[in-house]
Amino acid sequence: MSALSLAEPASPWPAKHERKRDRAVKREAVLHAAVQSFNRKGFHATSLDEVAASLNVTKPTIYHYFANKDEILFECVRLGLDGIRVAAETVERNGGSGFDRLKALMRRYAIIMTQDFGICVTRTADHELSPQAKAQFRALKREIDHTVRRVVADGMRDGSLAAGDPKIVTFTLTGALNWIARWYDPAGSLSAEEVADGCVATLLLGLTPRSGA
Amino acid sequence: MSALSLAEPASPWPAKHERKRDRAVKREAVLHAAVQSFNRKGFHATSLDEVAASLNVTKPTIYHYFANKDEILFECVRLGLDGIRVAAETVERNGGSGFDRLKALMRRYAIIMTQDFGICVTRTADHELSPQAKAQFRALKREIDHTVRRVVADGMRDGSLAAGDPKIVTFTLTGALNWIARWYDPAGSLSAEEVADGCVATLLLGLTPRSGA
Repeated sequence: MSALSLAEPASPWPAKHERKRDRAVKREAVLHAAVQSFNRKGFHATSLDEVAASLNVTKPTIYHYFANKDEILFECVRLGLDGIRVAAETVERNGGSGFDRLKALMRRYAIIMTQDFGICVTRTADHELSPQAKAQFRALKREIDHTVRRVVADGMRDGSLAAGDPKIVTFTLTGALNWIARWYDPAGSLSAEEVADGCVATLLLGLTPRSGA
Repeated sequence: MSALSLAEPASPWPAKHERKRDRAVKREAVLHAAVQSFNRKGFHATSLDEVAASLNVTKPTIYHYFANKDEILFECVRLGLDGIRVAAETVERNGGSGFDRLKALMRRYAIIMTQDFGICVTRTADHELSPQAKAQFRALKREIDHTVRRVVADGMRDGSLAAGDPKIVTFTLTGALNWIARWYDPAGSLSAEEVADGCVATLLLGLTPRSGA
């Protein structure tokens, strides 16, 4: 008599919660394979046949999880933007001066820009998205922009940040952070943490030497 | 007797130098029409039929000046990068401390990023260019990057700029400047000069208040 017959009768078919988890894992695998191709070759040059082949399946399998390539791209940028949104929420929960919150937010933002979905946000142009996705993409980006701008304005009010136009200051710092996605090389000599710390320090301290420094 | 007969005998055919100038003017008109479409709709969605129609001609006329759409895109980014290269040369000729040269270069760079060909440089991804154009594009970008990095390193050496890693500092500031091309709105409330001055001041002074400021 085998051990199996002593246990609960096992079904060769997965339970419902297992099927759900399995589906989520496979959906995510498609996104990870696709985002790497988008970042390397661009959206237009990415072929779902190749993405499927890299996962040992064929294109129809991918269509089991996503309607089309547009939807996959949108999901990739949404995940990248969601990372920044979550980082902003965490920072806001922790509280502190405008300076403290901005510094923490910038560091998390910078790290996301060294990761696949963050890179995809910077590399994707509005016009690569479908009209509906474009509107959602812009709305998500605007939300993040407003969050950063609010932290900047708070810091200018509480005196922890230098005075300035919150709009220009916000675009200057998010521009520098977004650009990390264009130049950071995971195979290069600088780690993601070194890039994040260096970029944030440059933005916080400025290029002009501090007196007494 | 008309005045005409007193002048040199006039030919209805243009002289060689006139034909040359005329060709240059028309070639430039194609580039200006194309870059606006690239910036608005992206390279892939830009149709040379539409570009030609906006100039009151048909596509074959455009092929009289350029081999294909790839060549037009490359010429657009080349013009944008050339603007930055010329700005850097002018600044280097004027001399001064690393700080003075970097400040002047950043301001010129920022203004270029509010203009059509500069915008095209930021919006164009490597993979949108043909393989040969991509190699040239990268070489031109690298040249500019090295020029900025040299000015940054000079300023760190002469003490006019804060100490730091010249590579990270350069990418941080060029990132912020390049990003202007993604957010500057000519129809918005801020002029190109206000954006340039605000962005450069933010980078020079940093986000941390200066003691005694």
